[in-house]
Parts: sequence; C-alpha cells; structure tokens
Amino acid sequence: MKPVVVRNIQRTDRKLCGVLANLGVSTVHEAYGRIGLMKTYMRPIWAGASVAGPAVTVLAPPGDNWMIHVAVEQCQKGDVLVVGCTADNTDGMFGELLATALKARGVVGLVIDAGCRDVKPLKEMGFPVWSRAISAKGTVKATLGTVNVPVVCAGVNVEPGDVVVADDDGVVVVARKYAAEVAQKGEKRLADEDAKRKRLAAGELGLDMYNMREPLGKAGLIYVDRLEDI
Amino acid sequence: MKPVVVRNIQRTDRKLCGVLANLGVSTVHEAYGRIGLMKTYMRPIWAGASVAGPAVTVLAPPGDNWMIHVAVEQCQKGDVLVVGCTADNTDGMFGELLATALKARGVVGLVIDAGCRDVKPLKEMGFPVWSRAISAKGTVKATLGTVNVPVVCAGVNVEPGDVVVADDDGVVVVARKYAAEVAQKGEKRLADEDAKRKRLAAGELGLDMYNMREPLGKAGLIYVDRLEDI
Amino acid sequence: MKPVVVRNIQRTDRKLCGVLANLGVSTVHEAYGRIGLMKTYMRPIWAGASVAGPAVTVLAPPGDNWMIHVAVEQCQKGDVLVVGCTADNTDGMFGELLATALKARGVVGLVIDAGCRDVKPLKEMGFPVWSRAISAKGTVKATLGTVNVPVVCAGVNVEPGDVVVADDDGVVVVARKYAAEVAQKGEKRLADEDAKRKRLAAGELGLDMYNMREPLGKAGLIYVDRLEDI
Amino acid sequence: MKPVVVRNIQRTDRKLCGVLANLGVSTVHEAYGRIGLMKTYMRPIWAGASVAGPAVTVLAPPGDNWMIHVAVEQCQKGDVLVVGCTADNTDGMFGELLATALKARGVVGLVIDAGCRDVKPLKEMGFPVWSRAISAKGTVKATLGTVNVPVVCAGVNVEPGDVVVADDDGVVVVARKYAAEVAQKGEKRLADEDAKRKRLAAGELGLDMYNMREPLGKAGLIYVDRLEDI
Amino acid sequence: MKPVVVRNIQRTDRKLCGVLANLGVSTVHEAYGRIGLMKTYMRPIWAGASVAGPAVTVLAPPGDNWMIHVAVEQCQKGDVLVVGCTADNTDGMFGELLATALKARGVVGLVIDAGCRDVKPLKEMGFPVWSRAISAKGTVKATLGTVNVPVVCAGVNVEPGDVVVADDDGVVVVARKYAAEVAQKGEKRLADEDAKRKRLAAGELGLDMYNMREPLGKAGLIYVDRLEDI
Amino acid sequence: MKPVVVRNIQRTDRKLCGVLANLGVSTVHEAYGRIGLMKTYMRPIWAGASVAGPAVTVLAPPGDNWMIHVAVEQCQKGDVLVVGCTADNTDGMFGELLATALKARGVVGLVIDAGCRDVKPLKEMGFPVWSRAISAKGTVKATLGTVNVPVVCAGVNVEPGDVVVADDDGVVVVARKYAAEVAQKGEKRLADEDAKRKRLAAGELGLDMYNMREPLGKAGLIYVDRLEDI
Repeated sequence: MKPVVVRNIQRTDRKLCGVLANLGVSTVHEAYGRIGLMKTYMRPIWAGASVAGPAVTVLAPPGDNWMIHVAVEQCQKGDVLVVGCTADNTDGMFGELLATALKARGVVGLVIDAGCRDVKPLKEMGFPVWSRAISAKGTVKATLGTVNVPVVCAGVNVEPGDVVVADDDGVVVVARKYAAEVAQKGEKRLADEDAKRKRLAAGELGLDMYNMREPLGKAGLIYVDRLEDI
Repeated sequence: MKPVVVRNIQRTDRKLCGVLANLGVSTVHEAYGRIGLMKTYMRPIWAGASVAGPAVTVLAPPGDNWMIHVAVEQCQKGDVLVVGCTADNTDGMFGELLATALKARGVVGLVIDAGCRDVKPLKEMGFPVWSRAISAKGTVKATLGTVNVPVVCAGVNVEPGDVVVADDDGVVVVARKYAAEVAQKGEKRLADEDAKRKRLAAGELGLDMYNMREPLGKAGLIYVDRLEDI
Repeated sequence: MKPVVVRNIQRTDRKLCGVLANLGVSTVHEAYGRIGLMKTYMRPIWAGASVAGPAVTVLAPPGDNWMIHVAVEQCQKGDVLVVGCTADNTDGMFGELLATALKARGVVGLVIDAGCRDVKPLKEMGFPVWSRAISAKGTVKATLGTVNVPVVCAGVNVEPGDVVVADDDGVVVVARKYAAEVAQKGEKRLADEDAKRKRLAAGELGLDMYNMREPLGKAGLIYVDRLEDI
Repeated sequence: MKPVVVRNIQRTDRKLCGVLANLGVSTVHEAYGRIGLMKTYMRPIWAGASVAGPAVTVLAPPGDNWMIHVAVEQCQKGDVLVVGCTADNTDGMFGELLATALKARGVVGLVIDAGCRDVKPLKEMGFPVWSRAISAKGTVKATLGTVNVPVVCAGVNVEPGDVVVADDDGVVVVARKYAAEVAQKGEKRLADEDAKRKRLAAGELGLDMYNMREPLGKAGLIYVDRLEDI
Repeated sequence: MKPVVVRNIQRTDRKLCGVLANLGVSTVHEAYGRIGLMKTYMRPIWAGASVAGPAVTVLAPPGDNWMIHVAVEQCQKGDVLVVGCTADNTDGMFGELLATALKARGVVGLVIDAGCRDVKPLKEMGFPVWSRAISAKGTVKATLGTVNVPVVCAGVNVEPGDVVVADDDGVVVVARKYAAEVAQKGEKRLADEDAKRKRLAAGELGLDMYNMREPLGKAGLIYVDRLEDI
Repeated sequence: MKPVVVRNIQRTDRKLCGVLANLGVSTVHEAYGRIGLMKTYMRPIWAGASVAGPAVTVLAPPGDNWMIHVAVEQCQKGDVLVVGCTADNTDGMFGELLATALKARGVVGLVIDAGCRDVKPLKEMGFPVWSRAISAKGTVKATLGTVNVPVVCAGVNVEPGDVVVADDDGVVVVARKYAAEVAQKGEKRLADEDAKRKRLAAGELGLDMYNMREPLGKAGLIYVDRLEDI
C-alpha cells in the first residue's frame, strides 16, 4: 500500500446527512438492514452529541498521529474525520489542538479506533469524539499511512464520502449510494414507531400490536400457571 | 428445556422492596452475606437511578428479543424485568418502544445481560436500565426461550419473584425468603454506619474505632521509620 | 516481603503539586517524556475532578482492605492514597466510610487498582476516586500487606512521596526528583500550546505551523487527485 | 446464606454419565436444546481429556480455597468437582496437591471459575481441569462458603448431582432429571450425523441434503454472476 | 444491503498462493508494508497448520450459520473460506460436518470471526481453522447475509479472491492485485534474513549488522556504567 | 527519564537461579510470600519450558523494538531478557532473528509485555518466550527507551539483576536480595509437599492432615444431610 493522500472524494449530500443525524444511529442501523455498525467499544467521550457527515478517512500506524495532521487539510465543512489503525491501539492520538484545527474547518466530529485525550477541554469546546479509549498517552510522528483510502474502523469498512452517523448509541456508517434510500426508510420507520409508541404507552401489548401470539404458538410456546407445572 | 411462560410467581413483598431500594446495593450486598452481586460489567445506562422490585425473568437466545415481548404481559406494577442469554451477547435487545410498554405496566427498571439502545430517549423518559453494553444492533424474533423460569443473569441465578436491587453501584439479587432478614440487617448496618461516619468525620481513626491495632500486631505488622529500616 | 508500614516518607513539595494539578495529566505526561501513565482502565468514578498530591502507597492482597485502614493513619493533608494489589481484582475495597476518614485528614483523592463502591455518596461528598471498576463486592480483613513501600499500581511503579496527578484523562505519576523539572517543562509547553491554539483556531494548518510538509515528502507521501490514480 | 455443607446429594446415574461423555460437549449441548453451556473462557489446561460425572458443587470467596478442601471429603468415585466464586477471580485456587487428593477419591475432573496452577504436573498425572485462567497466585483459607448448594459457575447454575460434561469444546451441564432424555436424543443425533457425514464427504451439498434452497429463496436470497450485478 | 451470492470471483493465482504460504504470515505482512493483519484474537484451533488461498467471503448474522452452508457451493479447490459477522459473536458457527463438506470440495482452511466447535475431530481430520473462540454454542438458520461480497473479518476488509495466508502467527490478507509484488518482496526478504540469521548465530550484534550505533547516538542514547550514574 | 543504557548490573547468583528454576513458579511465588507474580495474561508461546535467570530490563515505546536490539549487547550467558512498554501493546516486537542473537549470547528466555511472532521457528529452535500476545505485526525503530533501568512488566517492577522464573504456570520475579532466602524456603516447601502428596495419595483428607476441622467449626461451618435441611 502506497502512502497516499487522495484529494478529491465524492461526499454524501449534506441534506441527507442532516436527515440521518436526526434519525439517529439505531434507526439508521435498522433502516440500513442491520449492517454498518461499529463495535460497541466505540463510545462518545461526552454524552448528548449527535452528528452525521461524510467521512474523510485516515489509516494510521498505532501510536502515530502524523496522518491526522495531514488529513486536516483535506477536511471540509460538515465532514466527520474517521481514523483506523493498522493494529489495536489505545494511545491518545487526538486532543484539543487537533480539535481546534478541525473545528476551524467546520468538521463536526471525530471517530477514532484508538484513544483520545483532553476530554474536559473537548467537552467545553463542544467537539464530539467517539473513541475506543481515553488516554493521555502521547504519540509519535514517524510513519506514513493514508488519507481518503478506504479504511476499516472498529469493524466497519469506511469508504471516503460515506456518511457517518454517531450519537449516544454508537456509530453507524452508510455507503454513499445507499444514503438516500436509508434516509427514506428511516423516516418511514420513525413515523411508524411514533404510532406504535402511543399505542404501547396506552397499555396495548406488543404481543397484540405485532400479532405475535400466533407465531409464538406455532413455534411451540407453552403457558403454565406455576413453575411446578412444567 | 421446554419453551414455557409461567404465569403466576410469588413476588417479594413490595414494602420490603422499598426498604431494600433505600438501603442501596452495597448495603444490601453486605447484609446478605456478600453474595448475590451481578458481574461488575453491569452498568446503568444513565446515572442516579435506584430501584428495587420482584424479578420477572427471561431467558433469551443471543440477539433475539422475542421473549422480552412475551414477558411484558407477565409484568406488574413495581416489577423489575431481568433478562439472561444462552450465550454472551452485546446486541441492542431493548430500546425505547419496549421501555414504553414496560413503563405503561409500572415496571420500574430493566436488568439485561446483553446490550441496550436508545440511551438518550430512555434517559429522557426516566426508565432505568442496567446492561452489559450499549449497542444499536438490532435483533431478530426467531427462537423461543422462557419467562419466569430461574435464569442466570450476569453471574447470578435469579428466581422469579426474588428482589432485584440496582443503583450506581451495580445490581444485587436477594432470594425472596431472605428479603425480610436482609432488610432488617441492612437497616441495622446503616444505623451503625451513621454513627461510625460521624466519628470518622471527626477525625477518629478506623484503626481505633474498629480495634484493629491488636489483631494487626498479632498478624505480624511492623512499623519502621524509614524504608531503609526494613 | 515483610508486612511493614513506613512512617516517614519524603513528599513532593506541595506547591509543585499544585502546579502539576493545573497542568493536567496529558500535559504532565508529555513534559515527563511520555512515561508514568497508568493503564487506561483507570477511570474517575465521577467526571470533572482534578487533583495532584504526594503518594501514600498501599500494597493489598486482592479483596482485602485491611491495609487501607492502616494507611489512613499515615496520610497527611494534600496526599493522594495509591492502592495496588498482588493480583487482578475488581472488588469494592473502598467506599464512603473510608472516604470520610481520608477526607477528615485532608487527603485529596484515591487511586486504586481494584474496585470502588458507594459511587453516589462519594460524588455527593466530592471525594474523587480513580479505579479500575465499580463494585459493591465487600472485602475481608485477613491478610497483611505494606504501606509506603514502592507499589505497582495499574502498570506504574509508585514510590511513596512521588506526585500523583489525576483528572478526566487518567492518572500519571512523576518521580519526586523530577517533579520540578516536569512542572517547568509543562508550563512552557502550555504557553506554547496557547499560541498554537490561536493560530489553529484562525485556520492555519498544522502542516504549515509544524513545518511537516518537507519531512512528509521525504518520507514518501504522495498526493493524488482520485483514488483511481494510485 | 449460611456456610453449609450438604452431605447427601442425588447423583446422575453413572451409566448415563458415560454415555454423555462419549457424546461430547457439542452434541450434548445440541441435544439439550442449546442451553447449559458454560462461558467460552472456560478452557482445558491440557488438551484431549473428555469427562462426565455428577457435580459436587462449591461456592468459594475469591482467592480463598478453604471450601475446596472441605469439598474433597464429599466427593465420590466418578464425580466432577465444580467451583464457583462470589466475585470474578483468576487466582490459582487449585493445584497438584488438591488434585492428588481428588484423584485418590476417584474424582474425574475439576471445573473452576477461577485460576489453576501446577499445569505441568497436572498434565503428567492425567488430572483434567477446566478453568478461566492459569495462575500461580496462592490463595488464603479465611472465609467460608458452601458445598453442595446450587452454584453459578461460568454462567451456568449447577445443582449438586447434575451431570457435567467437559472436553476440548468446553463444559456443558445437564440437569439430572433431563440426563436420560438428553442421552437418548444425543445418541440419535450422533447416528444422524454419521449418515450426513458420509454424504457430505462424498460431495453432496448441505444445501441439498438439508433442503435449504427453497427456504433460502423464500427468504429472498439472490444469486448474481458478478459483484457489479448487484 | 441485498442478501446476495456472487457466483464468479477472480481468484489469486494458485501458484502465488503457494509461494505466500511458504513465506508465512509474518514475512508476508512485512512484505506487504505492515498492513492486512487480522486482530491477534484470531488463533488456530490446533497448532502447526500453514495455508494460503483465495478468499470466498461470507457475511453472517451473529449466531446464524445459514450463509456458511450457502457458501460451500461457491468454494473451489484451494480456497479459504472467510466468515465475518454483523456483530461481535463467539458462538460455535462451524464444526465437523461443515468441515467435511468443505474438505470434499478441496477447501484448505476456514477463517471465522466467531466461534468454532468440534476441535478434536477437526484436528484429527487435519482441517485447519482460525477463530476468535472455541464454543459448542449451536446456531440458528434464520437470517440471510451475503457470499462473495467484501466483508470485514477481524479488522480486515477482505475482497473475494484476495489471498488469505494463515499460520501459527495469525492471519494476513493480501489484495489480489498486490499478491505477485508481495510474493517477490517476501522471497527477497527471506533470502536476506537467511544471511542475517547466520551472522547473528555466529555472534555478530544487530547493532553492528544493521548499523544502528550512529542513529542511536544521534537520537540521544547514553551509556552509563551504573544506574547511579544517570 | 533519560534514554540510557546501564552497562553494569549486579546479577543474582547463577546457582540460585538454577535452584529457583527447579522449584518452579508456583513454589517460588509461595516461598516469596505470594508477591512478584506477573499478570496471568503472560503465557508461554510453547509449553514445557522452565527457566530462571537474572533480568536484563528494557523499557520500550509501544510498537518499537529498537531498544531490544540495544539490549542484546548487554546480555550475558544465563540471562532472561525482560521487556516492558510505556503503553499497552500487542505488536510482534520479537521474532526469530532477535532470538537467534540472544541465543548466541546464551540468553535463556524472553519475557515481554507485548506481542511475539515466528512462533513455529522459535519452538523449533527451543527458545522460550512468555508474552501477552502472538502477533505478526511488525514494529518500527524510531524512539528510544532504556536498558537496565527498573521496568514494570505485566504488573511487576523488575530491577536489573532480579531473578526471573518462568514456566507453564507463568512468570514470577524475585528481588536479588531475597533470592537465597526464597530458594531455601522453596526447597523446604517442596520437601514438605512431597510428604503431603504421599499422604493425600494414600487417601488421607486435607481436612485432617492440615487440622482444618476445628477452625472450620469455629468459623461457623455447618453440616446438614440434605439441602432441604438448611
């Protein structure tokens, strides 16, 4: 693999990103057919943020953040920076100064399969990060990687320009060509859920609302009065 | 094991549950003889909640929440729903809609040895969950399990009707027949601790208050002035 | 190893501790040459605290907090209590009563390579703890250990009197003899970062500010317009 | 929970144990309806052993093997000793001397949700152990637990006398009352598999043998010639 | 993502696969520029096997092996079957019967980011498997996935036809288009190492052989006689 | 911390090392008062080796093996090389070539809190390694560390010259000044165990041999005939 930076990528439409951010990770994940979800170890360093934007992708050697500095220049307003590593790593590859640089370019968040530091200042400046660890461990600038080449981050292959959706439930990545379809399905799902929520809140049982009783019976579910009756 | 739902269970007295909720997990765990504590990976999805109630128990296949839908119908006001899995799993088997259904029935919380999603809405609606992971991963409805059959959840065998106590310190389960005894011991312990707290706050040493100096000496503890003196 | 308590230790100067607390863990870690950082599993039980103080050290058997009681007496105003174990352990070896005793002596925080309980009361009383787990699991008082003998805690060898710095980024330990040098370097670093932060916030690229373009080119970094051009 | 030793337990019939040992863990687990399997972290300390026998159960405090010594006396020829702990623990609670004592009584193996030591001598004497860790960490004899009271071990609730089956695939526990039924189903399953194995070895496809093509098609599976055709 | 099976894939040349198998994982990984290595949790279920072959890829839902049955039909002589999951999973999705079917088609090994069972029979029949866990946990056949669509397995994105190299050091994946270049570089590397091995075995120091003394000195390395001299 | 190599260290007497190697890790750990044991994640890459020797210590940055090359020159016949890292790391920092160099100098083994590669050749050449992971991941040579300065490795602080004992049970480190005392106690312990082993093999109960019945009774242990009698 050559150490390369790709300058031009095709970004998911910004409006679609906005729709997906509003839908949230869990709804998008369902609408996408239950794929594209990063590992559950990816957690927000502070709660409450919710973002979506096209991915600028970085492949970095473990414990080396040189390529993140390189990637900043390739970022545009609304982007999400996505960093994968060539080996498992928890070092603090990202902190307040890099966040300042990204914020100045309008980047809306960072997703990194490694560690993050400066948690308190990042929260104060309102820059959201999803990472696998919090670590003050400083990193070197010794080895090259790639920018805007497809990268595996926390179990998901991210193509540059794919839309990354992240909130308190985690991080999901939708391929650019499916973004519109997923947004549409997600909005339909949300509308359906709204109706269901009202019925459930009124005391209706999911067993009835979803017509589960018959398939459960067919599958062999038995009801007894007491444990001793089994 | 037959796929069975047991309709009638004997619940721990609600008043006792209230007493145990007030005592909190750590005091209850001590009063119970230091048993019944779930694994430390069971964490609240939002901080500050404190509940206790009789267990309605579910055994579910990993990544399959069909039986949770079945269990809702068996829940009553004040219950805690407890979900164990037949294999390690972190998928998001529970979210806002199921919480809406449980809340409508007066269920006070969920304890699940798997993942949970919709973290932000769950916090907003004030429904507390203790889980091993946060995950947007959707689940199927394909395989049966059991409801109100004893289930191992996060290392503890939970009998239906046992009282489940959960707060920021974790989750502890007390067998129904010991609940009154544990409540009584816990209240005594709390009263004792109150007196101790005052003495310690006033500067008294635990070494003196607990009469530890003599047993420490007998066990062979040595005091020296400097490290070099050893 | 004899079970011994060392009464007199040489503490890092309190003023220096204050400087290091202000610098914070990440800056101190960098100024110290990127060593001395505890494992990333050491997390604050509540966010926002920031402390630094000389270490009083405890080596405890797993699941046994007898030596913590012994150590309280050796603590002075401004100290940080540091507890290591002879084997991996997550039991709740520390809680509200011990915190009350430490607070009465002016101890500013606890760092423990084991579990902690009473999370809510500890937060309410403002006593900060960094631990590897939260656990209600009670402990015994059966086996001796040491106090103020060097101890390995979460991967770092801590000498009594070394300064322990802890905040939301984790825990770093600086040897007493290097504390002044690290404080000085850290302050210089902070001043430098302040200037850099302003330039980055104004949109200057790190690539230019750090003069990275030439070494990146020498290392072989290539820019292409499209992925297909590689 | 009182610290108690139960002297008389009802053991699963020895002949049935022999049948289940021959079937092996994976077949027994399937025949039992895919329940009863211990966590996958339970591994044999040496490969190749295969045992089954009625459980003598121990609940021990972490890092304390006093109750294992107590349990030896309750063991009979053909038994499997099962040890659970009240908290997660990896200490070396079992070694060569205890194995010598168990072997003298005819015990066929140990299953322990903690650590084991003396790996080489245990292998030389042919005593099989399934444990969560290998650790030389010595343990104390300070706190009581129970013998022959139901115990949760590695995620499974084990009743004294239940049959424990263990081999290179892990450990599964079958309730005494289901042992005969499971043995019968397992033997049928094994016979079926034998026929299937021959057909598959001859090149027949599982797709055809199991008649999967139709349900796959109904579920919506599509075949295309090239990736680009999707 | 549509549930699709791609029938025709472009396989890495078999001769090249043979060369890469001989080079072994560590050499191939170096020759490939230190990328393409799967997570270190991927371990052989038995030691000593060494294989390389074009990937037939499967994306499966966790705990569901339906698509593995589908994939068998797409396998040819010399292939390696690669299975990724949509969520973390350790269930025993693969065992002896599937291995029999794969072996009948000439498949040389399986790489699965989930569990494997029937360890002993698989070893006896000489079918090598690299997996993240050993587990008897049976799986369902309820949900579709994909075959021969790119899949992330243990942190690496695998395109159908890429060459998978696996031995006791782990698993590395080389893109088809780089296979020849990597093979060539790897053979050169091996030849170089052979010469180095002889010099090192004769007592020559790496410091001298690699000319490290000067760069070490420039980087600031200091030699002192005693620790006290620092 | 300056990047320094200390040339002269005081090694534990070779004869003592031989005695400790014969005693083995578990006995040495007990004789040393149950301290000095490395984390249980440190496992031999091949089973059966048993070594002891004075430690030559390395502190390395994660994913950087430059200092191991430096350390080779400082090694003498009978030494054990011990490598700690400044952050958690599993990269393959050590392989066949370095082993060839160490073997040429008479080094008897390596203990590394990181990854190791070339497992098969290392086994074939009989060079034993205890590591936290097996990984083909190559490393850089970019950042300095230290040689023969005290280092924390897998939870234990190792002083240069301390004796490192390693076998299938793990790794234990004994301070040089305690080596003779530990050897003596260990030999006595072994002799005692020999006598005990014979008595236990003859069917005597540990309960009687260790006179446990009385203290167990005093602690409150109760015997009942059936579980229902509790």
